[in-house]
Amino acid sequence: MGMRRGTNLPRMGDFNQSVILEAIRQSGTGLSRTELVEATRLSAQTVTNITRRLLADGLIAEAGRTINGPGKPRVTLRMIAESRYSVGVHLDPAVMTFVLLDLTGAVVRRITTRTPVADPRRIVDAMAATIGSLIDASGVDRNLIAGVGVAAPGPLDAERGTVIDPPKLPGWHRVPLRAVLAEATGFEVTLEKDTTAAAVGELWTRHGPPDDSFVLIYLGTGIGAALARDGEVVRGSSRNLGEVGHIIVDPDGPACMCGYRGCVEVVCTPQAIVEQAEAAGVFPDDREVNDPEAVDTRFTQLCERAASGDVAAQRVLRQAAAHLAVLVAALTNMLDVDRVVLGGPFWSRLAPVYLQELPARLERLSATRAVHTLPVDGSVVGDDVGAVGAACVVLDSVLSPRTSDLLLET
Amino acid sequence: MGMRRGTNLPRMGDFNQSVILEAIRQSGTGLSRTELVEATRLSAQTVTNITRRLLADGLIAEAGRTINGPGKPRVTLRMIAESRYSVGVHLDPAVMTFVLLDLTGAVVRRITTRTPVADPRRIVDAMAATIGSLIDASGVDRNLIAGVGVAAPGPLDAERGTVIDPPKLPGWHRVPLRAVLAEATGFEVTLEKDTTAAAVGELWTRHGPPDDSFVLIYLGTGIGAALARDGEVVRGSSRNLGEVGHIIVDPDGPACMCGYRGCVEVVCTPQAIVEQAEAAGVFPDDREVNDPEAVDTRFTQLCERAASGDVAAQRVLRQAAAHLAVLVAALTNMLDVDRVVLGGPFWSRLAPVYLQELPARLERLSATRAVHTLPVDGSVVGDDVGAVGAACVVLDSVLSPRTSDLLLET
Repeated sequence: MGMRRGTNLPRMGDFNQSVILEAIRQSGTGLSRTELVEATRLSAQTVTNITRRLLADGLIAEAGRTINGPGKPRVTLRMIAESRYSVGVHLDPAVMTFVLLDLTGAVVRRITTRTPVADPRRIVDAMAATIGSLIDASGVDRNLIAGVGVAAPGPLDAERGTVIDPPKLPGWHRVPLRAVLAEATGFEVTLEKDTTAAAVGELWTRHGPPDDSFVLIYLGTGIGAALARDGEVVRGSSRNLGEVGHIIVDPDGPACMCGYRGCVEVVCTPQAIVEQAEAAGVFPDDREVNDPEAVDTRFTQLCERAASGDVAAQRVLRQAAAHLAVLVAALTNMLDVDRVVLGGPFWSRLAPVYLQELPARLERLSATRAVHTLPVDGSVVGDDVGAVGAACVVLDSVLSPRTSDLLLET
Repeated sequence: MGMRRGTNLPRMGDFNQSVILEAIRQSGTGLSRTELVEATRLSAQTVTNITRRLLADGLIAEAGRTINGPGKPRVTLRMIAESRYSVGVHLDPAVMTFVLLDLTGAVVRRITTRTPVADPRRIVDAMAATIGSLIDASGVDRNLIAGVGVAAPGPLDAERGTVIDPPKLPGWHRVPLRAVLAEATGFEVTLEKDTTAAAVGELWTRHGPPDDSFVLIYLGTGIGAALARDGEVVRGSSRNLGEVGHIIVDPDGPACMCGYRGCVEVVCTPQAIVEQAEAAGVFPDDREVNDPEAVDTRFTQLCERAASGDVAAQRVLRQAAAHLAVLVAALTNMLDVDRVVLGGPFWSRLAPVYLQELPARLERLSATRAVHTLPVDGSVVGDDVGAVGAACVVLDSVLSPRTSDLLLET
């Protein structure tokens, strides 16, 4: 029989240290000890003790004094951005994106390369080499790099650190990406679903309320979802939360290899939308494309045509938004979150039409419309959200408070 | 800008007290202080201090000594079942169920009554009167009753304590159930979705692992879901998590008033299944029923016929299981939980066919089948799970540790 674990003083200390560090980071311009007491509700003594430790560790610095009437001037404590770094990699079938972030989450350097075709070994070699170039070009001391985060399409085997069956990467099957890349680079490697990484990036970058709860819809080669609840990302039992590709959104849609019809996977993905546009005669030739790069190019053309007033292109995108609304409503009605975030590499191209179509459709389908509305926003991170998110996952494991960390180990 | 809150000693003390009380309750036969140290990982001094307080409050008692080799005998600490009680009410369109639970979660007394038709005022009056009879007949001191929990069909307005639009209770619209019932009974009233109450009841009754994570599918007049993560029920931002009635499970299904086709609501509910059985000629007459009581009766007949070998009846139920599998897979693929629990007032009748059909279908549709299997079980609480769960919600707020309670108030 299992028992809940309790908590104790050292656990409490670590947690409160993370809370303070996160408060300082989120403030941007820094906070005084008095402001930290107000923000965290911790005692002045606790704040003094913890900030002394953070100063000694070189993670924060005293950044100036503010005189505010009589009494002692307030000393502003600011995060030292250059005290730690992390690398984020986004493995996508067409493009690999690499970013180097400092401790504040700012992008110091960025590289993208074409994903080598097929052979996993070549992909991992290219990844390791590019990580090396990224760090060298930045001039950052390797010893200050906390680790490498890799965002990959799910599902993953988190325990073994393997990507199971990445779509459009047919050569991959249970490649032990985490171990191989750790060996090749000498860094600790964290493997995360691209969707989950995007949600971590969103939490890191948008300084929302501390109990921020959202579902993130990730628009990549596939469509996935992620969940944040009370300011923390929820990963699920096997870290595979968010596999929504076979939720049915169009009863009149095409057959899916799962045996059903009208799944997200065959209706809302870029490839499916490009096919719908081909069928609607949006493109001058009647060629049909399906390799990731060609789909990406046609997808851009489709969105450009819609923007320049092409009625057929607009109709295709509006219809895609209507189908995506069915998915989003299924998720928000099940999950009861505060808001919806859209992101991923295809998001910025879809944003003009989707932001116009989704909110009203979602409102109509919401089971809780009598109780609250559901704001719909684009991610603040942009198209690099996978790579930035993966780097944030590494910083997050260094910095962010998680209530579960309060519990004693079994 | 929002900040995460920290934690402090009093918060830690309350949390650890709940952890100890829950460990003693779950043990059933009681635990010694040494066993509590092992189970909770708390220090011996902390366990001694907290158990002293619980003994003084009359919630636990010393229940015997075990001599185990040389040294001091171990004193077993047991929960005093008669120290606190709670009342649970399940409001269903056809039947209202009332239970009185003791502090261990055992049902002391139970009453069911027919739900009066239409007028909400009469329903609340009948509810208050029956709660009175339930307590009187039990002989329990009213002062020992911690409160009344009411399980009702969602969505709810949790802030105002109102049921918004209960299906099949057409007279109801935003009835302030919590306030009216509190006034009529003199007890504190907690309003909870029936699905969420069922999940609380499941967690209370089945002593699973401390990080138990499951999705519960509630089979009532409507179909709903609930979620437990790491041993705690997840309620959602507006406490309305689990509205899954319009997830599409059958692209060939009938039209739904939401504008789509083949939603859970028109395919998997008892009324929908009875209609499918009527269309398949399972019943001798071609009458079509739709009031809750008649549907309930026909539903029982359908399940009995299937059990006694009627092929048409079996086919209808197997088909319903296949459609439910699509819902369950949508939820488990999104939520990534450890297991699936089925419950609610219609569950026990469906169990024989559903337990045979669901696991294999779910396995086939699972996005994580390469990583882990998904056990499917019936709730351990039985058909009264709504009422028992609602009473457990009240006990839960008295007893159970919640990591979020560790955080300082804003």
